[in-house]
Amino acid sequence: MIPRVSLPWRNGLRTRVPAGSRGCSGAQTTLRNDDGHPIIISPPLVSLDIPDDWAPATAQSGFSSPLSFSNEQQAAVIDGKSIADEIRSRIGSEVRRMKKSIGMVPGLAVIVVGHRRDSQTYVRNKVMACEEVGIKSMVTQLPEECTKDQLLGALSCFDVDPSVHGILVQLPLPQHLDEGRVLDVLSPEKDVDGFHPINMGNLAMRGREPLFIPCTPKGCIELLLRSGVEITGKKATVIGRSNIVGLPASLLLQRHHATVSIVHAFTKNPEHITCEADIVVTAAGVPNLVRGNWLKPGAVVIDIGTTPVEDSSCEHGYRLTGDVCYEEAVRVASAITPVPGGVGPMTIAMLLSNTLDSAKRVYAFT
Amino acid sequence: MIPRVSLPWRNGLRTRVPAGSRGCSGAQTTLRNDDGHPIIISPPLVSLDIPDDWAPATAQSGFSSPLSFSNEQQAAVIDGKSIADEIRSRIGSEVRRMKKSIGMVPGLAVIVVGHRRDSQTYVRNKVMACEEVGIKSMVTQLPEECTKDQLLGALSCFDVDPSVHGILVQLPLPQHLDEGRVLDVLSPEKDVDGFHPINMGNLAMRGREPLFIPCTPKGCIELLLRSGVEITGKKATVIGRSNIVGLPASLLLQRHHATVSIVHAFTKNPEHITCEADIVVTAAGVPNLVRGNWLKPGAVVIDIGTTPVEDSSCEHGYRLTGDVCYEEAVRVASAITPVPGGVGPMTIAMLLSNTLDSAKRVYAFT
Repeated sequence: MIPRVSLPWRNGLRTRVPAGSRGCSGAQTTLRNDDGHPIIISPPLVSLDIPDDWAPATAQSGFSSPLSFSNEQQAAVIDGKSIADEIRSRIGSEVRRMKKSIGMVPGLAVIVVGHRRDSQTYVRNKVMACEEVGIKSMVTQLPEECTKDQLLGALSCFDVDPSVHGILVQLPLPQHLDEGRVLDVLSPEKDVDGFHPINMGNLAMRGREPLFIPCTPKGCIELLLRSGVEITGKKATVIGRSNIVGLPASLLLQRHHATVSIVHAFTKNPEHITCEADIVVTAAGVPNLVRGNWLKPGAVVIDIGTTPVEDSSCEHGYRLTGDVCYEEAVRVASAITPVPGGVGPMTIAMLLSNTLDSAKRVYAFT
Repeated sequence: MIPRVSLPWRNGLRTRVPAGSRGCSGAQTTLRNDDGHPIIISPPLVSLDIPDDWAPATAQSGFSSPLSFSNEQQAAVIDGKSIADEIRSRIGSEVRRMKKSIGMVPGLAVIVVGHRRDSQTYVRNKVMACEEVGIKSMVTQLPEECTKDQLLGALSCFDVDPSVHGILVQLPLPQHLDEGRVLDVLSPEKDVDGFHPINMGNLAMRGREPLFIPCTPKGCIELLLRSGVEITGKKATVIGRSNIVGLPASLLLQRHHATVSIVHAFTKNPEHITCEADIVVTAAGVPNLVRGNWLKPGAVVIDIGTTPVEDSSCEHGYRLTGDVCYEEAVRVASAITPVPGGVGPMTIAMLLSNTLDSAKRVYAFT
């Protein structure tokens, strides 16, 4: 039987935050449930900002290895589904508390253009997740051939609607619509996906706090922290550099003081760099790209890839496949996220968390 | 005698830009002199955006080494001063052409708070450089104890002044003034330092073009390109992660398709990562941090560090010292920037270039 990792947050936070900096106020509030436990354990980023003091010893030492590991055991499976369920349940309680206290609930608007099967599935899942926790959701479905002005019109409606606290445009958009221009028009205050350049800039820059952190990278950090993985001072390799996953994951890991290397399609011998990493976060969208021999024994592996691969034995004729060759990796890594059931459920939980966070900010609800 | 590297741009560009993408319009215009030569050879970033195609071969090969190198020779010295002089001279011609053609010149406003000796020197150098090329400069000197409102008032005056195309606030500010809040107020359209989060976000995200790229990292890329150093597919290590140098340098190298690792004070064994790099960009501000044995033979070294170190034999009682132990590195690297005379002069040249770029954009002057 594959061991499940414990959730250290039940026994207190494992995040290393320098003394005296916890009180630093950031735009991102730490959500706390009515039982006093934080819903999300990732701290505000500015609370992590500590000066880069190179002297006297540049080579830090004394960090524990990511998770205790012996060659004889298989990797612990980081159970994203169960962690996400826990978070969603806590968000549900918090939404009920908000409704009872001020008569308001968070609202999420989703705009989807065209009828891509994967987009329709993602949107349906998001709507169902909202329903489950009591967040009001609204979906605007636009035809594949809609104009930029129609799309911007739909955005604008939600932008001025005070009952909407988060807006997301389901990506990818059809070729004729410029994603960048569309995202620029979205208010950063409702950008629950965290894809607006001003939120990305504030994610990148120390001393700053983005209003929203992109959901998938935020979910990865939450999984690491809840699995007791120390990030500070660790070598992290991020495979893939997309604007929505790889890039923000690398920026976020850096804000957590990992030493980050970014591998992409132009990287020569990507396995050499990956092999040195204590933490591997992979979002290339290439099934089985990362083989067992790409990994350092004991590494922690977060697999964000979810590519549908034909498989007639599965109900829908395909199965979702990660970037990591799981059967090999599970014998090398100390902990690993499965696909499905790893990062995927966390992405939606973080979307709900961002939407709740936004509503709390608007209503100054604590 | 230490050989000087040739300037390949005299014989045609060495930048690798994918076929068919040169015409892509970005916010950043390529400045061209009246002789048809570009002033800055770095292309718009969106013109570099090529899809990450992982298949069929993830491990790229066939790239030449940064510069031809044999163990018997010393590193070529990348002469930043002479390259910067050339650029400044071309900017001067372009400003004269603008004045003659539309009767306007670019304007740069500098706000300096307090009387730090280094800040006063930097500001004086910038003003002199503006004068030399015909850019109008205005300096507002505020007292050390000035309030946030006084500073924002000065910013606001320049912000509405149509003769001002670039505004910079000389950093660091005194402790009581929040740099982040001040920079947020600055119009991104006049942010010639490129420090506004929206410009930083657009620098980070593929498919986007910042209005301005921070001057020092932009100068580094210009030095690499003009020295014939291929960046695509190369391993680059950036040492230091400040918002104004290390971070944007890493983002910019990534936009140029380097495989980037970022080393900082929490990095364990920083020499191991640095030792694997084809290109080392160092901005730690720690004299002689990077020793000869930190470098891969043949690496290209860009030293951004400029720390004043006491030296009674020098005119002012101190000398500027880089992060790199030059005497050791020069025997290992294939090319290296000296301190002073390397990146420093390029920073001011890029500031002039950004200011000219801004004025051209405002006046739609081509």
